[in-house]
Amino acid sequence: MNKCEILYWTIGIIHSEHKEEDKTPVQPVYAKGCKGSVELFPEFVEGLRDLNEFSHIYLIYHFHKVQQVKLVVKPFLQDVYHGIFATRAPFRPNPIGLSVVELLGIEGNILHLDGVDILDGTPLLDIKPYTAKFDLHDVKKNGWQDDVDEQTAHKRGKRGYRS
Amino acid sequence: MNKCEILYWTIGIIHSEHKEEDKTPVQPVYAKGCKGSVELFPEFVEGLRDLNEFSHIYLIYHFHKVQQVKLVVKPFLQDVYHGIFATRAPFRPNPIGLSVVELLGIEGNILHLDGVDILDGTPLLDIKPYTAKFDLHDVKKNGWQDDVDEQTAHKRGKRGYRS
Repeated sequence: MNKCEILYWTIGIIHSEHKEEDKTPVQPVYAKGCKGSVELFPEFVEGLRDLNEFSHIYLIYHFHKVQQVKLVVKPFLQDVYHGIFATRAPFRPNPIGLSVVELLGIEGNILHLDGVDILDGTPLLDIKPYTAKFDLHDVKKNGWQDDVDEQTAHKRGKRGYRS
Repeated sequence: MNKCEILYWTIGIIHSEHKEEDKTPVQPVYAKGCKGSVELFPEFVEGLRDLNEFSHIYLIYHFHKVQQVKLVVKPFLQDVYHGIFATRAPFRPNPIGLSVVELLGIEGNILHLDGVDILDGTPLLDIKPYTAKFDLHDVKKNGWQDDVDEQTAHKRGKRGYRS
């Protein structure tokens, strides 16, 4: 199989208090208290049935502000170069973002969220439930992240948000 | 913002022992022992630097065999209808798959994996490290999955694989 195109359509928009890319926290763990919402396009509302019974969800979205691919990057948490696939940085061959956020409630086509580390106006691609059965793993090695202490991680991860 | 198109390119291919859709385990937790690999297209190899130091990774991929969208589905684990976004079923508005797999090692552009619940030949979109800092959450509610006992989940989740 060769390289081929994959075409998706946005299914909604993510709203948040983060209006500037370089002040947006880099992960939900550094965005506790950051409220936000998903505005799902009304045609997909039926797909939300029973989602309100989950405490956490995955958002899969498009890093729409990213203009270039970098195969090697310094992640926000550490001043060392790593391969892009060993980081969560946005400059990926496919600029797909993944965040686990807390689901506070659903009203119609609006999902109310906490821990939103996503730029306001980001196009949404998918929502999935995050569950204890599927998503809690016994992580033995965290690569370069094992060298970043928690205090440094929180300071850098917030990137100006209530710092 | 209205609906808009997002264009991605495959970055590699996922190889596995699962050749039939209806016998492919539905999640990595039901695919323990299922070896597989990622064949990353050589142009992206630089992006793998230091990834071998992580024990688990996310694979984000395209459910290439899915022909239709279903907003309401019965998930494999339970005979009750739920909204597609409350399940991990493939019939999504954007058929994006997400699996956390164990990374056994990397040789050149080949990633050796365990816990592969993915159909052989699946097009890959992204690889991200799964880490204790970002991805372990205190799940309080698992929705309908809280009603599925572990024995039933394992039996149904394997779907014919070494059942």
